[in-house]
Amino acid sequence: MTSPAKFKKDKEIIAEYDTQVKEIRAQLTEQMKCLDQQCELRVQLLQDLQDFFRKKAEIEMDYSRNLEKLAERFLAKTRSTKDQQFKKDQNVLSPVNCWNLLLNQVKRESRDHTTLSDIYLNNIIPRFVQVSEDSGRLFKKSKEVGQQLQDDLMKVLNELYSVMKTYHMYNADSISAQSKLKEAEKQEEKQIGKSVKQEDRQTPRSPDSSSNVRIEEKHVRRSSVKKIEKMKEKRQAKYTENKLKAIKARNEYLLALEATNASVFKYYIHDLSDLIDCCDLGYHASLNRALRTFLSAELNLEQSKHEGLDAIENAVENLDATSDKQRLMEMYNNVFCPPMKFEFQPHMGDMASQLCAQQPVQSELVQRCQQLQSRLSTLKIENEEVKKTMEATLQTIQDIVTVEDFDVSDCFQYSNSMESVKSTVSETFMSKPSIAKRRANQQETEQFYFTKMKEYLEGRNLITKLQAKHDLLQKTLGESQRTDCSLARRSSTVRKQDSSQAIPLVVESCIRFISRHGKRDFSLARICAESGRTSRNSLYSKHRD
Amino acid sequence: MTSPAKFKKDKEIIAEYDTQVKEIRAQLTEQMKCLDQQCELRVQLLQDLQDFFRKKAEIEMDYSRNLEKLAERFLAKTRSTKDQQFKKDQNVLSPVNCWNLLLNQVKRESRDHTTLSDIYLNNIIPRFVQVSEDSGRLFKKSKEVGQQLQDDLMKVLNELYSVMKTYHMYNADSISAQSKLKEAEKQEEKQIGKSVKQEDRQTPRSPDSSSNVRIEEKHVRRSSVKKIEKMKEKRQAKYTENKLKAIKARNEYLLALEATNASVFKYYIHDLSDLIDCCDLGYHASLNRALRTFLSAELNLEQSKHEGLDAIENAVENLDATSDKQRLMEMYNNVFCPPMKFEFQPHMGDMASQLCAQQPVQSELVQRCQQLQSRLSTLKIENEEVKKTMEATLQTIQDIVTVEDFDVSDCFQYSNSMESVKSTVSETFMSKPSIAKRRANQQETEQFYFTKMKEYLEGRNLITKLQAKHDLLQKTLGESQRTDCSLARRSSTVRKQDSSQAIPLVVESCIRFISRHGKRDFSLARICAESGRTSRNSLYSKHRD
Repeated sequence: MTSPAKFKKDKEIIAEYDTQVKEIRAQLTEQMKCLDQQCELRVQLLQDLQDFFRKKAEIEMDYSRNLEKLAERFLAKTRSTKDQQFKKDQNVLSPVNCWNLLLNQVKRESRDHTTLSDIYLNNIIPRFVQVSEDSGRLFKKSKEVGQQLQDDLMKVLNELYSVMKTYHMYNADSISAQSKLKEAEKQEEKQIGKSVKQEDRQTPRSPDSSSNVRIEEKHVRRSSVKKIEKMKEKRQAKYTENKLKAIKARNEYLLALEATNASVFKYYIHDLSDLIDCCDLGYHASLNRALRTFLSAELNLEQSKHEGLDAIENAVENLDATSDKQRLMEMYNNVFCPPMKFEFQPHMGDMASQLCAQQPVQSELVQRCQQLQSRLSTLKIENEEVKKTMEATLQTIQDIVTVEDFDVSDCFQYSNSMESVKSTVSETFMSKPSIAKRRANQQETEQFYFTKMKEYLEGRNLITKLQAKHDLLQKTLGESQRTDCSLARRSSTVRKQDSSQAIPLVVESCIRFISRHGKRDFSLARICAESGRTSRNSLYSKHRD
Repeated sequence: MTSPAKFKKDKEIIAEYDTQVKEIRAQLTEQMKCLDQQCELRVQLLQDLQDFFRKKAEIEMDYSRNLEKLAERFLAKTRSTKDQQFKKDQNVLSPVNCWNLLLNQVKRESRDHTTLSDIYLNNIIPRFVQVSEDSGRLFKKSKEVGQQLQDDLMKVLNELYSVMKTYHMYNADSISAQSKLKEAEKQEEKQIGKSVKQEDRQTPRSPDSSSNVRIEEKHVRRSSVKKIEKMKEKRQAKYTENKLKAIKARNEYLLALEATNASVFKYYIHDLSDLIDCCDLGYHASLNRALRTFLSAELNLEQSKHEGLDAIENAVENLDATSDKQRLMEMYNNVFCPPMKFEFQPHMGDMASQLCAQQPVQSELVQRCQQLQSRLSTLKIENEEVKKTMEATLQTIQDIVTVEDFDVSDCFQYSNSMESVKSTVSETFMSKPSIAKRRANQQETEQFYFTKMKEYLEGRNLITKLQAKHDLLQKTLGESQRTDCSLARRSSTVRKQDSSQAIPLVVESCIRFISRHGKRDFSLARICAESGRTSRNSLYSKHRD
């Protein structure tokens, strides 16, 4: 604008404008192509999603069927067991409970994966189909709108072109009128200059010489000046008229320029954005819902599976040898129930059913009692030592078998290369040399435990027998000191009894005493075993504690 | 004991005893059988667990392979896309991101199920094998211990049997000695009675008559009494001796009875319990560890899967049309970038590049400006109405497409009968009549939206153009009032300029004003588009907000 060295002519300006418009037109075409491509990609993506979920539904169904078969294989086995009571009995054992829950879990997972497959087919895929339909329809409609917007834009550019050309035309006219005016002005100036020179020559010293010629000349010059002035005025009017037209045309051009730039701005900044919004209308939201349906299904599956695993974990926590032992004993009550106590059977009406601890056997019994006592204390000390060793060994075994080696988190921490998964996992449990060593150690310890166990049980066997004898002796001897009955007296008492048939008070109280204290535990056990399972349980545990 | 009506004899007592021992022996046999059975069940259970996990490992591997294939099928497709830059570009779009994460998740699950399968085969199954070996060995050893304990118990019972028989023997001897003694005592009494009678007959009134006979008789009687006395004494001694033996035998019997009952008690209450403990040694703990390994594997799988689902959920949350639009525009920057602004091109060195608003065009322009203003206010009101309707319609569509219908929890709430699963699930999404209705409604609303949209865009088109013209007119007219330059003056100014070639200050300030205020937005957009993507983004969003 500021460089006047070279004025731009119509053709140049038009050529530049054409180039600019051509570029815009090319962009508009590309924009449509770009939207078409996005539409195609979208349709392709939705098709892929449908194919993906269709195939995954098949996989889930396959998986479900396999799990179902697996569960059925073992459940059928249980069902075929004829003795249903036996089956019921076994179920109370904690390992069997774990096993049943494991099978339940497989059945549950089978069912859940069927549900998943069904949700894929009958909910998620139809959603993608809908999104695809909607997308296609919206793209088509949006493209129509876009085409209209582009057409409008091109109209604006054409308008600009025509007003620009009008401006060029009127400006050219104005320039031409201006130059014609300038020419007239020059001629006028020239004519005025001539007149002044001639008047300068004519006027001095000879006022009347050839005045007619001068007047005639003056008249000719004056009409020429007038003619030129008239032409100049005419050209001035023409220029003013053309100049106004040019100004108006330039104004129109400037206004059109403003409108065009605003329209282009609007199209690129607002229209294109709105157009893409139209294409996207509901797409993201619908896709969101379809994928959330997938997530909901997966999370429900996960929750269901987790519930099952919780149940199994609970059962695993309740794996308990002690309660299983009690349940087993209850189950086979008749097999594990202690038998009737052996009672004293009086031979041929023998009336003395108690230990006789009077002279002459008394001193012998006293001595025997003392011997038993000293032997028992030695035996007990020895067996207590064995027991301690045995229990320490048991603790070692417990430590071995309860080592917490079951965390497999490491196996799920993959390195970046997926190929290395297999080798990592396989080595975790079996190939560790420490495991083999631990097992050898476990068996050795176990062997030692059994040796000590046998030793301890033998000792306890002997102690039990001797203790029983010793206790009876001690009790009887303690009583016999208080009840001063000699063998002689007793024999007469026996004779008296023979006739009266009554049990002497002394004997009666002895029986009561023994049954109340000496054999209390056994009698209780007996009573409980006969009166029902439940109470016996508590007794067993009391004994073991 | 108290019923003397019938004395129990040896045979009777022995028979009763035999019956009682026979019952115990039968129980002991049953106990061993019971332990054998438990051992067999345990081995069977462990075998079942191994078979179960072996089969499940196969199923998991199958599942894993199918998932791998599924993921590869689609990933291969992406990989085969030649234009990697294009692929990279597409990945920034939020739906494509979801799709990629979906495929990643399948790959992750495939890998995790392979790991699971591997843990089953190489960790869990070997554990069950070990538990099975341990169980068998322990049962064998425990059975030996049990056999020993039973043998010991039988020994005690045999001992009781023999001391009981000894008691019977000595008691029989004692009874027999007692009866012989009684017989002797009776004879003695009889003899004493005879002597007294004879002496009563002999002594009154005839003291010397036949005294020799009496003395002789007396002598005979006396020796007979002595003989009887001697016999009685002998029998008394015999009885005392036998009685003592019987007492001792009874004492031994009573002591043995006590020892036996204590041993039986110990065996049933303690030994059997210890024996079962020996069989169970480490069984529950090892089973616990094996099952915890299973749980650890399942929970790790669950966690891994959940992490993947979280990533997908995050991507679904980030499904966003606005940012995708921005990314698309960045991606195709050259296609969506606004073109160069159309500049005023002065024709043939035309120096006036601004709107001319002096007389004589001024009044015309003023009028035109007023007309534009009134037309614009009408158009704006109308278009605002259209916009409101359009936006309300859009909101309706948004409400339809964002309805939260994706929760499938119901599908996982099974009724007790598993058969009814399929029908329930299938009906959830597609067959609901409300869905069809909703879709019809959606499309109708969409159609209406597009109608309003087109109407609005047309209005905006017109408003943009008229507004641009109006603004330029208003601005120029405002300035021309201040800068009082008439057409006439101007034309002379132009002429002056023609010679000086300098832009007048007025024009220069006009240019600056317009470029600073009037076309500010557009210029800014232009600058940003040229200076880089990032800043343009913020501009886009500014414009849309």
